[in-house]
This record gives sequence, structure tokens and C-alpha cells, in this order.
Amino acid sequence: MTFDELLGSRRSVRNYRQDPVSQELITEMINESTLAPNAGNEQPWKFIVINNQAVMKRISDESKRNILARIAANPDDYASRYKTILEKEGYNVFYNAPCLVMILGPARLRNIYADCTLAAAYFMLAAASRGLGTCWVNLGRAIEDQEMLTELGVPDDCDIIAPIALGYPTQIPPVPKRKPPEILKIID
Amino acid sequence: MTFDELLGSRRSVRNYRQDPVSQELITEMINESTLAPNAGNEQPWKFIVINNQAVMKRISDESKRNILARIAANPDDYASRYKTILEKEGYNVFYNAPCLVMILGPARLRNIYADCTLAAAYFMLAAASRGLGTCWVNLGRAIEDQEMLTELGVPDDCDIIAPIALGYPTQIPPVPKRKPPEILKIID
Repeated sequence: MTFDELLGSRRSVRNYRQDPVSQELITEMINESTLAPNAGNEQPWKFIVINNQAVMKRISDESKRNILARIAANPDDYASRYKTILEKEGYNVFYNAPCLVMILGPARLRNIYADCTLAAAYFMLAAASRGLGTCWVNLGRAIEDQEMLTELGVPDDCDIIAPIALGYPTQIPPVPKRKPPEILKIID
Repeated sequence: MTFDELLGSRRSVRNYRQDPVSQELITEMINESTLAPNAGNEQPWKFIVINNQAVMKRISDESKRNILARIAANPDDYASRYKTILEKEGYNVFYNAPCLVMILGPARLRNIYADCTLAAAYFMLAAASRGLGTCWVNLGRAIEDQEMLTELGVPDDCDIIAPIALGYPTQIPPVPKRKPPEILKIID
């Protein structure tokens, strides 16, 4: 697949087939993610792989609960736009994906958000190059329950930065409209 | 170029030929950057293109000065490791690149850092797919001088997130060693 084709096929996928994704493929994609640029070549990213939809549902419920509490405390919160859907008991933030890959890292590192986000970009492209679909689900990382964090293997000093739903798409959605890019100034 | 080849050729480049990069190519790459995933499809990224090495040198000097002040105030600062090199008057954080592309966006947006970082990942891959080299130069974004911000066209409400040096590489550096990825847990 050329880069052009890849750019067209990497879409945020919200409807998945139920076929599992082999650990071999997931490991390959994680390996490719670690080729992303990162501050000082520290490669501080860590990964957790969840192939269990019951566990994913519990993460979804925990995260929804915490985001709704955040919205209640601050109606101006960015997530307020998702309030109605978050309140639906049946709504699963990971849709029906068979797999969830979380990218996380030590919160004390100054560049950890950028580094894990770069790895996430690579991971989503690596998935698209294999016909797999992904969706970065920001609504799925508000986990506060300490027991759940322990169960998932999240170290105490780490922030979950990119929870990425993964699976074979039922179809590749069309490219949503993009605005012309805002180039503020060209200095020659 | 396949995705595999692209992964191997996207390296952080620190030595550039002096040939300019055409605005047509830069615009193409910026267009491709806007295909990156982003929160709520808001596409909040903005771009500034600088093809002037004198202006880039002034940005480098301003940023070095501010980072050195930050280090003086807090020796534990992440950038302390770069103190010796930052103190060298002749050191240019953008190396000898002929071009600098800055990705920036409104600081008030909750996900602006992630969104601009995703666009930056796409931009760096788009450059590699055209034989161009890039380097995300975090040491080049500490601009505080209001006159300079105005000259560059940085809106008051925006943070510069990714300053990316751009140009044709004198050579593609080899892939630096990567650690085996830390997969903390696989839950089946």
C-alpha cells in the first residue's frame, strides 16, 4: 500500500467485525509504533492489549461514570457535548471492537503526551496498512478505580494517553470533509 | 513507497542540503497532515511556513535564551541535559535546515496538543514519502517575545506545538536502536 492509499484508508472506524486480531499482528504493529520519533530517543511508551469485550465494557462504564461526574462539576468541560450519549446505559465508548490497545507512559516525563501520541499515529497507520480499523477513544481513558488500574496492569506512575479500539472494519468509512488548511503566514 | 519503506526512511534529520523546498510540495504535505485523526473532527491545527534562515536563526536564539532562563530557574528541568549545547552561541536548534514549518493551535482547546501532534506525525511521514527530511525541534518553540510572535503571525490565543525543520537530507541517518516494546499486559 502506498502512503497515498494509506492516508485514504486510515479512517476512524466505529463498526467492527467480531473476528479477533491475532497477537502476532498486534505485536508487529506495536513494533512499528516504536519507530515513531520521540524526545531524546527515550522511547518511554508502554502498551496494554485487551482482547476481552467484557473487560472493555467495564472500562467503558468506569470511564463514562468519571467523565459524567467531571461534566456535572464543570458544565463547560469539553466532554459536555457527549453528555446525552454518555448517559445511555447501553452505549459502549469502544463500540463493538474486539480489541483495545492502550498506549501509556510515566506522567513525570515532560514530553510523554507527545511521544505516546506519535506512537499512536504510527499504530493507527500500521493497522490501516494491514486492513485493520482503529479509533482513538479519548472517552475511554478516564479510569480512576484503583482496583481496575491494577487489574489492567497500569503502573502507579503512568497516565493512559491513547486508548485505541482495534478490529477489522465492517466497512471503511468515507473520508470526512476536511477544511482547507489554515496556513497563517509564509515567510520567504 | 510502501509503509514499511516509509517507516525505515522517516528519520530525524540533522544535516540538510541547502536546496529550497517548493511551496507546492509544502502545501501538499500540509494538506496530507490534515487527514490525521483529531478530536471531534474539529481540525483545529494551523500552520506557519518559514523559508528564511535569518528568521530561523532569530527564533533559535530567542528559544535558546528562554530555555536557558527556565533551566536557571529550575535545574531539574528536562531541558537541562541540553544546557551545554544551548550555551554555545553558534548552535542553531534548527541545524542548517532551509525551512521550518510550525504547527500550532488555540491553547484553550482541551485536545490541541494531541491534535497538532497527530498532524505533525502525518507531516513527517508525508515529507519522508517525498525524500524530504524533518526533525521535530522542541527546543525551538520557546518564543516569548511578543514582537517576534506578531512578526511570525502567531495568534495571541495559540500555542506553538510542533516546530518541524524541513529540507532535503544530505543523507538518511540509520535507524537508531529501538528497545523491545514494553507490553505490560495482554488480557484475553
